[in-house]
Amino acid sequence: MKPVHPGESGGQYKPLSHKDVTAVLENSFRILEEIGFNQATPHCIKTCTAYGAEMGDDDRLRIPRKVVKKAIESSNRDLVLHGQDPAHDLHVTGSRVYFYTPGAAGMIADPVNKTNRDALAQDLYDMSRISDTCEHIHIFQRTNVLCDIKDNYAMDLNTTYNSVMGTTKHVGSSWTEAHHLEKTLKLLHLMAGSEEAWRARPFVSQSNCFVVPPMKFAEESLECLRIAVEGSMPVLLLSAGQAGATAPACLAGTVSQAWAECLGGLVYVNAIKPGAPAILGTWPFVSDLRTGAMSGGSPEQGILSAACAQIGQHLDLPTGTGCGMSDSKLPDFQGGAEHASNVAIAALSGANVIYESAGMYASLLSACPESLLMDNDVLGACMRMVKGVTVNEETLAFDVTKDVCLSNKGHYLGSDQTLKVMQTEYIYPEFYNRLSPNDWSDAGKPEALSEAVQRKEHILATHFPKHVSDEVDDKIRAEFPVFLSKKALGR
Amino acid sequence: MKPVHPGESGGQYKPLSHKDVTAVLENSFRILEEIGFNQATPHCIKTCTAYGAEMGDDDRLRIPRKVVKKAIESSNRDLVLHGQDPAHDLHVTGSRVYFYTPGAAGMIADPVNKTNRDALAQDLYDMSRISDTCEHIHIFQRTNVLCDIKDNYAMDLNTTYNSVMGTTKHVGSSWTEAHHLEKTLKLLHLMAGSEEAWRARPFVSQSNCFVVPPMKFAEESLECLRIAVEGSMPVLLLSAGQAGATAPACLAGTVSQAWAECLGGLVYVNAIKPGAPAILGTWPFVSDLRTGAMSGGSPEQGILSAACAQIGQHLDLPTGTGCGMSDSKLPDFQGGAEHASNVAIAALSGANVIYESAGMYASLLSACPESLLMDNDVLGACMRMVKGVTVNEETLAFDVTKDVCLSNKGHYLGSDQTLKVMQTEYIYPEFYNRLSPNDWSDAGKPEALSEAVQRKEHILATHFPKHVSDEVDDKIRAEFPVFLSKKALGR
Repeated sequence: MKPVHPGESGGQYKPLSHKDVTAVLENSFRILEEIGFNQATPHCIKTCTAYGAEMGDDDRLRIPRKVVKKAIESSNRDLVLHGQDPAHDLHVTGSRVYFYTPGAAGMIADPVNKTNRDALAQDLYDMSRISDTCEHIHIFQRTNVLCDIKDNYAMDLNTTYNSVMGTTKHVGSSWTEAHHLEKTLKLLHLMAGSEEAWRARPFVSQSNCFVVPPMKFAEESLECLRIAVEGSMPVLLLSAGQAGATAPACLAGTVSQAWAECLGGLVYVNAIKPGAPAILGTWPFVSDLRTGAMSGGSPEQGILSAACAQIGQHLDLPTGTGCGMSDSKLPDFQGGAEHASNVAIAALSGANVIYESAGMYASLLSACPESLLMDNDVLGACMRMVKGVTVNEETLAFDVTKDVCLSNKGHYLGSDQTLKVMQTEYIYPEFYNRLSPNDWSDAGKPEALSEAVQRKEHILATHFPKHVSDEVDDKIRAEFPVFLSKKALGR
Repeated sequence: MKPVHPGESGGQYKPLSHKDVTAVLENSFRILEEIGFNQATPHCIKTCTAYGAEMGDDDRLRIPRKVVKKAIESSNRDLVLHGQDPAHDLHVTGSRVYFYTPGAAGMIADPVNKTNRDALAQDLYDMSRISDTCEHIHIFQRTNVLCDIKDNYAMDLNTTYNSVMGTTKHVGSSWTEAHHLEKTLKLLHLMAGSEEAWRARPFVSQSNCFVVPPMKFAEESLECLRIAVEGSMPVLLLSAGQAGATAPACLAGTVSQAWAECLGGLVYVNAIKPGAPAILGTWPFVSDLRTGAMSGGSPEQGILSAACAQIGQHLDLPTGTGCGMSDSKLPDFQGGAEHASNVAIAALSGANVIYESAGMYASLLSACPESLLMDNDVLGACMRMVKGVTVNEETLAFDVTKDVCLSNKGHYLGSDQTLKVMQTEYIYPEFYNRLSPNDWSDAGKPEALSEAVQRKEHILATHFPKHVSDEVDDKIRAEFPVFLSKKALGR
């Protein structure tokens, strides 16, 4: 008996008219056909030209629309993101909506002392543990950089390790070099029990920035992409252009470019392995054109994400977007307003996976542990909006209304129906305060933040997931440069 | 050159399917036909039965659907809410969206000292002056009760006076007794220059709670309604049932009851004077069913408001709703999150007028002056969402994209288009902070609230609208018990 479940169906908000959708897609196809990508790798060129793409004299890989349509056709549109615990399996399809934590802040925000400091390895494990307790955070994506690990291989490896050890949910991560990923896959095989077991239920996805907008492939990322696809790891094909800087300043142009870039990635994925699990990561960001700085909390960010999601719905492809970060430096009024309104509209648009939907500040520079908990209330509310209004004979409640009015009861408080639906029609926040001003004052003026600070401390002192056994952990530690001590993991 | 204007067109978010809309409306018609209202006044009974309604043996006024449809047909669907300054005239029609301040808090929240105190007459004048400076607050509705005025007539009169004196925008107010309204109309005639001038451009609306849900008329309010209609004052037909308490616990039932009640009011208005200016005020509220207390910040509030607005769009009637208040006691994370997400979805649903969209806390018990300014940023962002994505050949920007990619410029920062659209595609907040963590720290860690506190103090020290001349003000003071001194008005 819960008011919302993971994967409620969105799509009630359509920022674009049908004509607009067609015009944007036509523009995306033209970009792929007439402009194409530069800096393709030899493997990408070979695989994609064999699939029907064309290499130009100007070293740009162009993709005719019939080739793009073939890739769209053969794409996986019924994707399962496996949890480490099968209870957290997510079925990414249609207009189902899921929430992901953000990715890769260099700093951790302390909202009590109002400071930002370098993010560390321990922080990532802690963020994962906090997210593990949050009902409406469905996937844990590595939230921060590990500034205390200087070696890139060790950083990539420990990023996955710390994320996976802190939660039984599906995890998202990323890799800077192909051989780091190859090694990490071996670690994941150990965790899964065997390579076969991993391939049957891959519980880690790759966020892959295969393109440097506009329309330039990122060579090392293409290699990581290939290895992920070959290794049965789901990929997020991430196009993160910034409107006005690395994407057109007009939103329609930015959406077009994002979709052109992601469809280009989809062609490569399907050319390697038709139907390999991939999420179209149309993540256009926004520039504040007065300064050139990114503005993740702007309303244009919400609009861009929703419009991209609508195109994804139209193509019936699993679509993700990055939305919900704030430009504020801490979870204040601005933080709440920017998080909640942008996630709400992206969720209502039916974006399958909304990344950056919890805990992210200063656009994406800083992550806040306490905010994960407060954002869990935001995300629950957004999911409730997605669930919407259930209309049927019972919920229309004509007979109940008639009884209350004609019997002169005057209110519905005592109706059987009221008691019956209080856990299904209504969601109750954990940290938000609903007391009257006087009761609130008597209670010591609790705020969502003060409550979240307390809860965070409790979680970090007590919540040490043990789904990876000590035996497996010892094997991992014998083979890989694990940074955190066993003690840090509560073992 | 502004990114948004008052009255951008919403309706992109449709919480209900077409089938659901039909089912809800059918249920509303049944409620009017089979249940009807009790406690109608003699004038209401006489006027409505002459129009086709039927009085039952059980003293309930029932309205057959053909009579309701006649009223819908003859309704004013092309309404102008006149500003005192014609620059603030608002054309309420179709799916145009406008933002109204809230109504009638008993307390004023001080977000710096985190206290709530009784609201006073001076506060109302101050709230009006602050709202006068806010671009995205289009109408000033009396925000608070005047606890320092004990006499009800003086309170009603000064509520209108203080509101009107602080802003040149359209004003909303309410009256507890019919003869208070009659006197206030005389005051408004003085302000307008003559009764004729008032009737040509009535610049004050009445919020009228003509119904005590479920389905019981409020007798004194019906009289106020009649006087407003006869006096050319636009009316907001306000049904403020509380789901689970005075309306069904199921949202579909609550929407049905709200629409039944408002359509009943519309029948009375059109029976008095076909086409008299009226806004359908479907304002269902939400109960926290664990305590019975109202929860204005809940996501169910946003959903209810949006669903009501969608029905209004379907009937092509001017529709208002109450949405955007927070359950928090001050503008913190919760305050921002609840304000912004609920206003965003109500606005996207195409609610013509969104009341309670700025400054309202503790559900509706407390109003916060500083929050009006911060909410102006919220409302600007919501209006930007409503404006959405403009799709045409220029905004699709194929040629710009081609140029940037093929010339290897690599970015759009220097494109003519980027400069050209920076004031039309993007909205820039006034109080939100977009600095990087380091720059923010160097700047003394400004937050939206600290900036708003400063701005509020400046406005209250300097902004004294003088659109009502001293001569007219003297005439008003000679005839009516004006509470605030001339000095308080900066005269």
